[in-house]
Amino acid sequence: MIKAISGGVTAAQGFRASAAEAGIKYQGRMDMAMLFADVPCRAAGTFTTNVVKAAPVLWDRQIVCEKGTAQAVVMNSGIANACTGEEGMEYCRRTAQAAGEVLGIPAENVLVASTGVIGMQLPIDRIVAGTKALASKLDSSESAGNEAARAIMTTDTVPKEMAVQVTIGGKTVTVGGMCKGSGMIHPNMCTMLSFLTTDVCISQELLLHALREDVKDTYNMVSVDGDTSTNDTVLLLSSGLAGNPEITEMNEDYEQFAAALREVNTCLAKKIAGDGEGATALFEVQVIGAASKEDAVKLSKSVVGSSLTKAAIYGHDANCGRVLCALGYAGVPFDPEKVDLTFTSGAGTIKVIENGVFTDFSEEQATEILSDSHVTAIADMKMGECSATAWGCDLTHEYVSINADYRS
Amino acid sequence: MIKAISGGVTAAQGFRASAAEAGIKYQGRMDMAMLFADVPCRAAGTFTTNVVKAAPVLWDRQIVCEKGTAQAVVMNSGIANACTGEEGMEYCRRTAQAAGEVLGIPAENVLVASTGVIGMQLPIDRIVAGTKALASKLDSSESAGNEAARAIMTTDTVPKEMAVQVTIGGKTVTVGGMCKGSGMIHPNMCTMLSFLTTDVCISQELLLHALREDVKDTYNMVSVDGDTSTNDTVLLLSSGLAGNPEITEMNEDYEQFAAALREVNTCLAKKIAGDGEGATALFEVQVIGAASKEDAVKLSKSVVGSSLTKAAIYGHDANCGRVLCALGYAGVPFDPEKVDLTFTSGAGTIKVIENGVFTDFSEEQATEILSDSHVTAIADMKMGECSATAWGCDLTHEYVSINADYRS
Repeated sequence: MIKAISGGVTAAQGFRASAAEAGIKYQGRMDMAMLFADVPCRAAGTFTTNVVKAAPVLWDRQIVCEKGTAQAVVMNSGIANACTGEEGMEYCRRTAQAAGEVLGIPAENVLVASTGVIGMQLPIDRIVAGTKALASKLDSSESAGNEAARAIMTTDTVPKEMAVQVTIGGKTVTVGGMCKGSGMIHPNMCTMLSFLTTDVCISQELLLHALREDVKDTYNMVSVDGDTSTNDTVLLLSSGLAGNPEITEMNEDYEQFAAALREVNTCLAKKIAGDGEGATALFEVQVIGAASKEDAVKLSKSVVGSSLTKAAIYGHDANCGRVLCALGYAGVPFDPEKVDLTFTSGAGTIKVIENGVFTDFSEEQATEILSDSHVTAIADMKMGECSATAWGCDLTHEYVSINADYRS
Repeated sequence: MIKAISGGVTAAQGFRASAAEAGIKYQGRMDMAMLFADVPCRAAGTFTTNVVKAAPVLWDRQIVCEKGTAQAVVMNSGIANACTGEEGMEYCRRTAQAAGEVLGIPAENVLVASTGVIGMQLPIDRIVAGTKALASKLDSSESAGNEAARAIMTTDTVPKEMAVQVTIGGKTVTVGGMCKGSGMIHPNMCTMLSFLTTDVCISQELLLHALREDVKDTYNMVSVDGDTSTNDTVLLLSSGLAGNPEITEMNEDYEQFAAALREVNTCLAKKIAGDGEGATALFEVQVIGAASKEDAVKLSKSVVGSSLTKAAIYGHDANCGRVLCALGYAGVPFDPEKVDLTFTSGAGTIKVIENGVFTDFSEEQATEILSDSHVTAIADMKMGECSATAWGCDLTHEYVSINADYRS
């Protein structure tokens, strides 16, 4: 039984967070955050597949892959520290050193994360000052977690948090997290910044395994605009303070933990999609009856990434031909004359294509269904038993406005 | 020496065209066109790679691939005749039959092409009536070709025509064409409707070879929105009336013809990109110094298809980080710390990234360069000797407006 609770990164035992106004790029708002664990944590991470990797990604990857332990994360919004060369790497080191000194832990136990404009150098003096301020404000309260979730926002319109509890080995285990979107979001490894904390006691190997398996069906199934960022990072820290018997094999306890993690990440992934830059609706695409899981993933991602389909969703237009067209160029063989397509939302359900041909559906009813803030398209390929779900959003005037003028 | 001349599909010897108002979907404008040759032509074609192929694509592919000869093309805008099942195929047959009867040629020498909304059935009685009207108006004048180019437009804002002349075997050979964009345009085989005519005398085999080679570097390098249409078609008819010795091998005459064809198709491809839905600028991406041609193609297409980059071009914003990011997720290995990036236009040239790091460029000058109606980004990968050029356009508010409400 997985139970949703309020809170985010500070929900699990042993975690504290804080936020600070460091004046990096934004004015008059929190733009740095810190996450700190009372004990050294087992750490797992997954990172962008982009050939161009931001400095913080390189820094974190080394720590997570080589040591698998960490105790703090320092985050900033406004500047991505990407395409910044050796100077950018040096700023990661200096940030970690500053945090390590003030927190009394080794610099190599400090992870860093940045999001914002590519190409600019971080104002390192402000980052160091901000790091000190953050350390003095650390708190385990729900509101401290919420402030951190707000500080990492860029074009996000709402903070994104989620936490659940589950019983493992007779103990209450908590998994919580926060993340930020909302542009340069496209399936390929994790697709934004997400920070997850848990008090479960689990081996580092299985912690990483659980995360890697999970991102395939959650963050990697989100697309806002087809652009895979240079900074995508998902970090998962486990304090082990829940007191459950350590999970060291893929048993029922593991499955319980994996299910809790899935719940948190699915929720956060959908929040990212629904808060995509300029979005007015969460667009969910379920492909069923595919010949393989891989096919289902490709097909659902193709539809969720189609600019024409996204614009039609914005216009509340049941332009199902665009959906069929996007299935057709996914690079997956299928019989177009078998496909069924259904739109569903809180306002109802309507089958618009049957065996590849348009049904005589009511445009009026379809428009009503497509006017909801969460629209789902279900494509039945009738080629097999496999399925996948992808999440995106509509393509709006506001997306263009945000991105035509993001740097200024 | 290739010489540009005025005109389009009627420029070459032996071709006539016409346009008619058939009332298919648009009101008060020409929406059908016909192309007719005085003699049976050798015919070559390339078609969409989308699994979902419109009925006219299936009809034409059979004629072009199995017979390689044709004498007429009947085109309509407004309805795509895609996702229309057996009924849609029957309408292709009836259109070709109607044209064949009135033109006095076999139905299997008549190609058909449709563009517009997916899923609706053609009003076949109007199509048949329109076909008869078209046959009575056929004319070899330049203006008849221009009217045909206007009749096949959908969201295009301007008709797109081009013609050139070249001397082959002592004879003047003409190659001309017309095409239409402008949404659902993405590299994968030909990416819109394009109709090309020539009076060169050439074997069917080499005609097809020339076309296939050419589309790789022209139409397939255009992307407006990443959506590969169900209807993409390029048709090339040769009347052989120029009187040159028949080209039957890959000799100098062939190279001359191929160069003329390249000139026409490059021009038409750029016109499609520059008139992409809602576009305010033609965006050209040249990748040089790639390790292979295939790499260069992937890299240039990735940048030209990046929504974030396209929005930045619209905003006249030298957001070069987005270009580097899009290179990074192209699926091609390279060293980010070697890349140089330059923006150039009629307003000047500016190097914005050198060896992977931002130069200290003038934002003011960059904005001026990016405010031109034709902006080129040149990325030097420094990995080898290969290059490729892709064409696209900026992503604008108008694109969203057009596509949120296209069907109504």
